[in-house]
Amino acid sequence: MAATFEYKEVVGIATESIEAAIKAGLKEVSAKYQIAWFEAVSLRGRMVDAETTEYQVTLKIGCREK
Amino acid sequence: MAATFEYKEVVGIATESIEAAIKAGLKEVSAKYQIAWFEAVSLRGRMVDAETTEYQVTLKIGCREK
Amino acid sequence: MAATFEYKEVVGIATESIEAAIKAGLKEVSAKYQIAWFEAVSLRGRMVDAETTEYQVTLKIGCREK
Amino acid sequence: MAATFEYKEVVGIATESIEAAIKAGLKEVSAKYQIAWFEAVSLRGRMVDAETTEYQVTLKIGCREK
Amino acid sequence: MAATFEYKEVVGIATESIEAAIKAGLKEVSAKYQIAWFEAVSLRGRMVDAETTEYQVTLKIGCREK
Amino acid sequence: MAATFEYKEVVGIATESIEAAIKAGLKEVSAKYQIAWFEAVSLRGRMVDAETTEYQVTLKIGCREK
Amino acid sequence: MAATFEYKEVVGIATESIEAAIKAGLKEVSAKYQIAWFEAVSLRGRMVDAETTEYQVTLKIGCREK
Amino acid sequence: MAATFEYKEVVGIATESIEAAIKAGLKEVSAKYQIAWFEAVSLRGRMVDAETTEYQVTLKIGCREK
Amino acid sequence: MAATFEYKEVVGIATESIEAAIKAGLKEVSAKYQIAWFEAVSLRGRMVDAETTEYQVTLKIGCREK
Amino acid sequence: MAATFEYKEVVGIATESIEAAIKAGLKEVSAKYQIAWFEAVSLRGRMVDAETTEYQVTLKIGCREK
Amino acid sequence: MAATFEYKEVVGIATESIEAAIKAGLKEVSAKYQIAWFEAVSLRGRMVDAETTEYQVTLKIGCREK
Amino acid sequence: MAATFEYKEVVGIATESIEAAIKAGLKEVSAKYQIAWFEAVSLRGRMVDAETTEYQVTLKIGCREK
Repeated sequence: MAATFEYKEVVGIATESIEAAIKAGLKEVSAKYQIAWFEAVSLRGRMVDAETTEYQVTLKIGCREK
Repeated sequence: MAATFEYKEVVGIATESIEAAIKAGLKEVSAKYQIAWFEAVSLRGRMVDAETTEYQVTLKIGCREK
Repeated sequence: MAATFEYKEVVGIATESIEAAIKAGLKEVSAKYQIAWFEAVSLRGRMVDAETTEYQVTLKIGCREK
Repeated sequence: MAATFEYKEVVGIATESIEAAIKAGLKEVSAKYQIAWFEAVSLRGRMVDAETTEYQVTLKIGCREK
Repeated sequence: MAATFEYKEVVGIATESIEAAIKAGLKEVSAKYQIAWFEAVSLRGRMVDAETTEYQVTLKIGCREK
Repeated sequence: MAATFEYKEVVGIATESIEAAIKAGLKEVSAKYQIAWFEAVSLRGRMVDAETTEYQVTLKIGCREK
Repeated sequence: MAATFEYKEVVGIATESIEAAIKAGLKEVSAKYQIAWFEAVSLRGRMVDAETTEYQVTLKIGCREK
Repeated sequence: MAATFEYKEVVGIATESIEAAIKAGLKEVSAKYQIAWFEAVSLRGRMVDAETTEYQVTLKIGCREK
Repeated sequence: MAATFEYKEVVGIATESIEAAIKAGLKEVSAKYQIAWFEAVSLRGRMVDAETTEYQVTLKIGCREK
Repeated sequence: MAATFEYKEVVGIATESIEAAIKAGLKEVSAKYQIAWFEAVSLRGRMVDAETTEYQVTLKIGCREK
Repeated sequence: MAATFEYKEVVGIATESIEAAIKAGLKEVSAKYQIAWFEAVSLRGRMVDAETTEYQVTLKIGCREK
Repeated sequence: MAATFEYKEVVGIATESIEAAIKAGLKEVSAKYQIAWFEAVSLRGRMVDAETTEYQVTLKIGCREK
C-alpha cells in the first residue's frame, strides 16, 4: 500500500484568470507527478498594462511520483 | 432587534470556476437560512482529468434562520 | 535609486467575478500611484439576490507615488 | 460519560459595550444548548452615528445539547 | 451530484490516548452525519491525577446529512 | 457605483476603557473619511500607575474619502 | 543600560468586565516585576449563571525584575 | 478568590509515544506548580535510529504556584 | 562545513496510530535523504469504517542528500 | 492629549544589510511623519548577482503627522 | 535522562545591529540557564535619532536550569 | 512563455551574521536552479560558545531549473 504523498509547491501564472493560473501550475507538476489534490495558499499579481492583470497563484500540490 | 448571527461553514464544489463553487455553497445554505455575508477561508481542489479541475471553496457564512 | 515602496490596502468590489473585483481595486489605486504588485489577502462577499453574488477582495498593493 | 462538546460560532451584537455583545451571543445559544465555555475570536463593528458604536463579537462557543 | 459538504466542529475527549479522543469526536458526529474527512485543529487537556491525562482534541469534520 | 473601500490602520488610545480607545481611533479617522466598518486587530497597553491602565487598540478601518 | 525585557504570560480573570480581568492579571505580575507593557492575546470565558459572565484574558506582559 | 493563572511553556520529550512526551512535560512542571490545563502547540522530533523516533511536544501549561 | 539543510514536505498515512503515520512519512524520505529533524504541521484523516480511522500527518522534514 | 497613532506600511530596500533596508524604509516615512515605533513584518529579497543580495523588509510604522 | 526543556521569552535590545539585539537577549538568559536553541519571533524597534535605530528582538529560548 | 516557478525551502546556516546565513542558503540552491526571489520565513539559532551565535534562516526560494 502506498502510504505517503509528497508536497510540491509551485507558482502558476496566467493573465486570463485565477483558474488559468492554477491550471498552469498543475500542468507543470503533472508532467512528472501524479497529482492527488492541491491547496491554493496565496494569490499575488501585477498589472501588465491598464487592461491586463497577471495572476500568480501559489499552490501546494499533494502528489506521488508516476 | 435581532442581535446575533450564526456562522455556518461549508465546502462548495464545482468544476466550472471558483465563483461557481462559491455559489454552490451559498445555494445549499440559503435553502434554510437567510445569508448576510460570507468569507472564503480556503481553496483546495483536484484534477478530474487533464482538462478539468475541481474547485473546493470553504466558506464561512454569516446567517440567520429564516 | 528609488529604495522604497509603500503599501495601500483597499477592498475591490464587483458582481461579475473575483477578477473584476481585483481590477476594481487596482484601478482605484492606479489613478494616483504606480502599482508594482498586489497581494489578495481576503475574499468576502454577499448575495445580492438568488442569481447575483458580490465579491469583495481585500488587496495589499505595493506602489509608489507617480 | 459525556465525551464530546460541539462548537457553535455566532456573532453577538450590541451598542453598549463589548461585554454586552458577548452576552447577546451567549444568550442566543444558551436557549438551546448548555454552554461550557467560549472564545472571542474577532471584534468588528461600525459607527451608527457620531456618538454610537456597534460592537460585533464573533464567539466560538463550546456546548452540549440540553 | 452532491456538490457541498458542511463542517461540524467538535471536541472529542478521552483519557486513553489522542487517538481515542479523536474517535470519540468522530463517533458523536457519525450518529447523524456521513463523515468524509476530519482535521485536528487543536490539542488541549488536563491532568486528572498523577497517572492520568485527559486529551481534548478539537476536530473540524467534513460531512453530509445521512 | 462606488466600487472600492480603502483601509486606514490606526491605534486608538484611552485610559477609561477598551471602548473609549476604539472611539478615539474612529474619531480621528472620521474627521477626513466616511467610515463603513472597523476591525480591532490587537490590544496592547501599559500601566500608567497602580490604578490606571492605558488601552491601545489597533483598528483597521474600512472607509472612503468624504 | 538595561538591554532586555522578559515576557510573563498570565490569564487574568474577572466577572465585572474585560478591563477588570486585564487588571487582575497585571496586578499579580506587578507584585514581583516592573511592568513595561502588555499585549492581550486571547479572550475566553464561561457563563457563571444567566446574569454573570466570567472573562479570562491571556496577557503577555513585558517586564523586568524590580 | 485566586483570580489569575500563569503560563509555563515547556518541551516534553519521549521516544515511546506523543502521549509519553506530553506526560514528561507535565511531570516536570507539576513538581513545582498545580496544573490546571495544557495546550500542545507544536510537535517536532528526530529519528534516533531506523526503529526509534523521538517526539518533542511543546506545551503551554496553565498553572498556579502550589 | 555543510551549511544548509533542505525541507521535504510529505504526508505520512497509517491506520494504527498517529505515530505510525509519522514513521511512514519519515521512512519514505529516509530512503534518499539523511533526516535531521521533522515538524508535524497538520493532522487530517478519515473514517475507513466504524472501527478504523486513517491518520494523515503532514511533516516538514529537515534533511540532506545522503 | 494626542490619543491616536496611524500605521504606514512600506517596503525598505537595500543591498548592504537588513538593517540598511529597515533604515531606508524609516527614512522615507520620517520625511513626512514623526515615527514612534516600527515592526518588521516580512523579509523578502532577490539575488542581484552571485555576490550581491537585495533585502526587502516590510515595515509597519506607528507614526503621527509632523 | 533529562527529558524536558523550558521556554523563556525575552526581548533583546541593541542599537548596533539585529544580531547584537539577539546576543543581548541570549546573554541575559544564559546567566541562569543553559541555552539549547532560540527562535526569533518578532522584530520591532524605534528611531533614537536620525542616524540611530534601536532593534528589539523577541526571542523564545529553549533552555534548562544550570 | 515559462509560466511557473517552483519553491525550494532550505535552511541557511552561518555564524557571522543573518545575511551570511541567507547567502549560504541561496548559494546551495543557485548551484542547480535559477533563483527569482526568496522569502525568509523563520530565524532560529543556537549559542556555539559565549562569543559565537549560529544563525539558522529558513528560506522559501522561488526558482526555475537552469
